[in-house]
Amino acid sequence: MRLRHKPWAEEFINSHPEIVIPNPEALKGNWDKEFKNDHPLHIEVGTGKGQFITGMAKQNPHINYIGIELYDSVIVSALENAIAAGSPPNLRLLKVNGADLAKYFEKNDVDRVYLNFSDPWPKIRHAKRRLTHEGFLELYESILVDNAEIHFKTDNRGLFEYSLISMSAYGMLIKDVSLDLHVNMPEDNIMTEYEEKFSAKGQPIYRVEAKFV
Amino acid sequence: MRLRHKPWAEEFINSHPEIVIPNPEALKGNWDKEFKNDHPLHIEVGTGKGQFITGMAKQNPHINYIGIELYDSVIVSALENAIAAGSPPNLRLLKVNGADLAKYFEKNDVDRVYLNFSDPWPKIRHAKRRLTHEGFLELYESILVDNAEIHFKTDNRGLFEYSLISMSAYGMLIKDVSLDLHVNMPEDNIMTEYEEKFSAKGQPIYRVEAKFV
Repeated sequence: MRLRHKPWAEEFINSHPEIVIPNPEALKGNWDKEFKNDHPLHIEVGTGKGQFITGMAKQNPHINYIGIELYDSVIVSALENAIAAGSPPNLRLLKVNGADLAKYFEKNDVDRVYLNFSDPWPKIRHAKRRLTHEGFLELYESILVDNAEIHFKTDNRGLFEYSLISMSAYGMLIKDVSLDLHVNMPEDNIMTEYEEKFSAKGQPIYRVEAKFV
Repeated sequence: MRLRHKPWAEEFINSHPEIVIPNPEALKGNWDKEFKNDHPLHIEVGTGKGQFITGMAKQNPHINYIGIELYDSVIVSALENAIAAGSPPNLRLLKVNGADLAKYFEKNDVDRVYLNFSDPWPKIRHAKRRLTHEGFLELYESILVDNAEIHFKTDNRGLFEYSLISMSAYGMLIKDVSLDLHVNMPEDNIMTEYEEKFSAKGQPIYRVEAKFV
């Protein structure tokens, strides 16, 4: 994603602590208190401009959602999206690095991980940065309940091929695969900004549901 | 594949017992004797007109190959292909039903199974006929050496999606995946007749290598 400098972003983010959580370390193991219920918690790592996570939160009021995004200039759009959607009570944003998830969540805190249109990091020497690399799968497993699922969508063929192999090598079960999601669009599919753009060009969207076993 | 009636086919097949093996039951557990060596044995289930298996046999003289095809009118083309290629000593054809593999092979007889452009059997009630259905995976495992691989190519998206899920559910490891094989064509890729036809139309060819573990 192209990053634009937005000097007003930091102030705007800081003025909405009810959505962009200012002290997530303090909530590790206690996310129920933040949401004031014990509903399942689904997180999206790399939430971008937030269309997906906001749409999911509106669609599924009995699931809690956290969108995780590192960059001020990007998460500010997710914040605007959340406010425009009426600040759903089951939606939060975290302005942190996905590699640091273990600082904010402990085992059994999270029930599902969504990855959407993650950076493909196509160079082999950057493979460890891919969000489906073994190191990240370990990280997700360390904060998820047992037998949880990762739901992953991308337009990037190379990243998808890599991810199937990586997940299988990790011992995960491939539960569902779509190699052209929009041919038989699931009724409840919430599109990301990238997904709208790429599918409008006729490019196939790849999707997998994989389960830790 | 469209089947044409070829009244001369049976006679032609019967006149080439050195390629189309007339008594495969007798060779169960003894394929080394047929090939007069102990090289690995790779089989293709549903060999069609034989371009793939003949090309593989020519490319890899130290591997034995058997192409399996039920229909007279189809296997006769594979036989013609084999003869035109100089009747490679490491190539045989079997005119039998793939569902009956256990009549002709026993555990450890086979080192790899190839499936190429298999019938997709798109109707759910025909799922058991798909060559990557659990029942067929069991059958392959019962004649393969331990930790053997299935190499599968198809242009059919639905069958490929089904196959990834079926193989994963069976506990197989997804070792390699290509969702558009011809973009980075492997140098040693031998194309089937279907593959030439579909890739010429710009359709992606899907390929997976999956391992029994």
